[in-house]
Amino acid sequence: MKPQRLILFAAALLAAPVLSSAQSAALKPLNVPAKTLPVPYADISPQMQKIIAAPLNPNWNDQWQTGAQARAFANTQAAGIVKTIPGMLARLHVTVQPTIIGGVKAYIVTPDSIPPENQGKLLIHVHGGCYVLFPGEAGVTEAIMMAGFGHYKVISVDYRMPPEAYFPTALDDAVTVYRQELKTTPAKDIAFFGTSAGGALTLEMVLRARQEGLPMPGAIAPGTPMSDVTLTGDSFYTNEKVDNVLVSRNGFCQAATVIYAHGHNLADPLLSPVYGDMHGFPPAILTTGTRDLLLSNTVRVDRKMLRSGDIAELEVFEGESHAQYQFDDTVPETREAFTEIGTFFGKYLGQ
Amino acid sequence: MKPQRLILFAAALLAAPVLSSAQSAALKPLNVPAKTLPVPYADISPQMQKIIAAPLNPNWNDQWQTGAQARAFANTQAAGIVKTIPGMLARLHVTVQPTIIGGVKAYIVTPDSIPPENQGKLLIHVHGGCYVLFPGEAGVTEAIMMAGFGHYKVISVDYRMPPEAYFPTALDDAVTVYRQELKTTPAKDIAFFGTSAGGALTLEMVLRARQEGLPMPGAIAPGTPMSDVTLTGDSFYTNEKVDNVLVSRNGFCQAATVIYAHGHNLADPLLSPVYGDMHGFPPAILTTGTRDLLLSNTVRVDRKMLRSGDIAELEVFEGESHAQYQFDDTVPETREAFTEIGTFFGKYLGQ
Repeated sequence: MKPQRLILFAAALLAAPVLSSAQSAALKPLNVPAKTLPVPYADISPQMQKIIAAPLNPNWNDQWQTGAQARAFANTQAAGIVKTIPGMLARLHVTVQPTIIGGVKAYIVTPDSIPPENQGKLLIHVHGGCYVLFPGEAGVTEAIMMAGFGHYKVISVDYRMPPEAYFPTALDDAVTVYRQELKTTPAKDIAFFGTSAGGALTLEMVLRARQEGLPMPGAIAPGTPMSDVTLTGDSFYTNEKVDNVLVSRNGFCQAATVIYAHGHNLADPLLSPVYGDMHGFPPAILTTGTRDLLLSNTVRVDRKMLRSGDIAELEVFEGESHAQYQFDDTVPETREAFTEIGTFFGKYLGQ
Repeated sequence: MKPQRLILFAAALLAAPVLSSAQSAALKPLNVPAKTLPVPYADISPQMQKIIAAPLNPNWNDQWQTGAQARAFANTQAAGIVKTIPGMLARLHVTVQPTIIGGVKAYIVTPDSIPPENQGKLLIHVHGGCYVLFPGEAGVTEAIMMAGFGHYKVISVDYRMPPEAYFPTALDDAVTVYRQELKTTPAKDIAFFGTSAGGALTLEMVLRARQEGLPMPGAIAPGTPMSDVTLTGDSFYTNEKVDNVLVSRNGFCQAATVIYAHGHNLADPLLSPVYGDMHGFPPAILTTGTRDLLLSNTVRVDRKMLRSGDIAELEVFEGESHAQYQFDDTVPETREAFTEIGTFFGKYLGQ
């Protein structure tokens, strides 16, 4: 290496900031007055405007205490979602088949046509829902969107949840599926993806795969990941009662996460993956919105990966709250988000 | 083209959402209660935490009516900034030489060492300041950071401002410099960059270059661009009094922009470039922060470029307000931001 190159290389290493893990008591908080937010409209489809304009999630402050309480809510919600699946399958030209992989329940989600360049590639999907919602087929909607818009075969993991099982069983189940699939598909041809708890599980799967000596997948798409369930991160405050889905850092999603953690330390990187070592992570595409309570959770993972020398791309949608890019397959921005993720996978898988 | 490829190609075209340019009166605004924001600290350097914790800009509500009023403030501010430049030049190993290019005042900003791969490359810098601030040498600080951290030769345009000249003179001057430099440097080896009004001018230069039949530059870095001075965009509301630099969409920066526009329509793409045609734009790297009043201005340009089939990368810094990534060259995140821009230019210039 020539001296000049060496100097630049050293400068690049120095570019990683000296970071803080503690708040200075001397720094004063900022008081922000009450305000009224018009519904944003510029560069936003009319369909997404309606989603953005919805009132605050009426269940935002549900404070479940047990897995059984959370599951009761989840079952009612799931029944409504399952009814929408046949229409979605027809619109997106996708089929879903239940299966068992290494003892783990899963769904094989297949688009009617897979282009030559996507054949032999496999996406493993881990659904969201704060580790307690979307049991069974209700967890498969995002996998259908990905298969339909991205034209890839997807396996959606129906991981066990409270009250059947607690941390780290969801992660165990997802990694079991990966381990099984590695028997027939090279790691470089496999991607992980998911949103919210599924975004966190995507990152946790990479951390756990490395712990277990498994090869890294070819790419990942952690969507608005619950990457820090210690509730650290600026948008937990700035977007409080701005995000109409999660609404508050102390709402239903945190109650659910505490149930899943089952007494385990919330700062463990297998629950708060932003604290994990991300050097050598596979290329990642991260998706969020400007009103997302987890905007900072997403931005911090993107920045940590970049600071670790990884490839990371950040997609931020105007005006959207938590995970709204995957609420409705008929919304133009949903197609856009999954088309971008598919393009990203096409760029990095197989390399 | 095979039928399958044709179908996918058509699907990709359909991925561009049907967008709205009007707000539905039926959609209800959201009332957000008053809140207190702690200073964010996770993954943020202690130096940047202090910048984030600063009280609201005391001049945020200056309502200048004339170019002379704005210039009086700008001159006082500039006198303070100019005193900091010798220290910055010494720290970053950069020299600054005033020059005249095609009749336009400018500064040649040169790092002490330029690596072989950056030789022959040229960055044209347009400073920020709401089209009225940072006259003369006070406008050169960001160019020094870019030269020092990115190791490129930079020309910083000291474009005319009110009260000497009004829209579109700033843009005229910047494009004149580009036209002159094209006589000795191929367009593919030239990048444009700048922050705030400089981010807008970066985009406006591309629009104007195309109008005039000039070739596209090789890359651009519009930092938190004032891309929509009609005050459209969600973060003008969500980050009101959260951003401690601009503070409000109706503050000093809007007053200054109205002075510069001098009666011209603020929705003209040469003042609000988000409304310009961005098909065929050069690869862009955009930088903003989660508290930035212009977060939406930045996100909308990123998304519009992606929807136009361009290459665009978005960098979002945790907790930062408008343009804070270029406030202080001794802050680790400043080095990080300009190192990333330099790496991006290294990837796309010369192609």
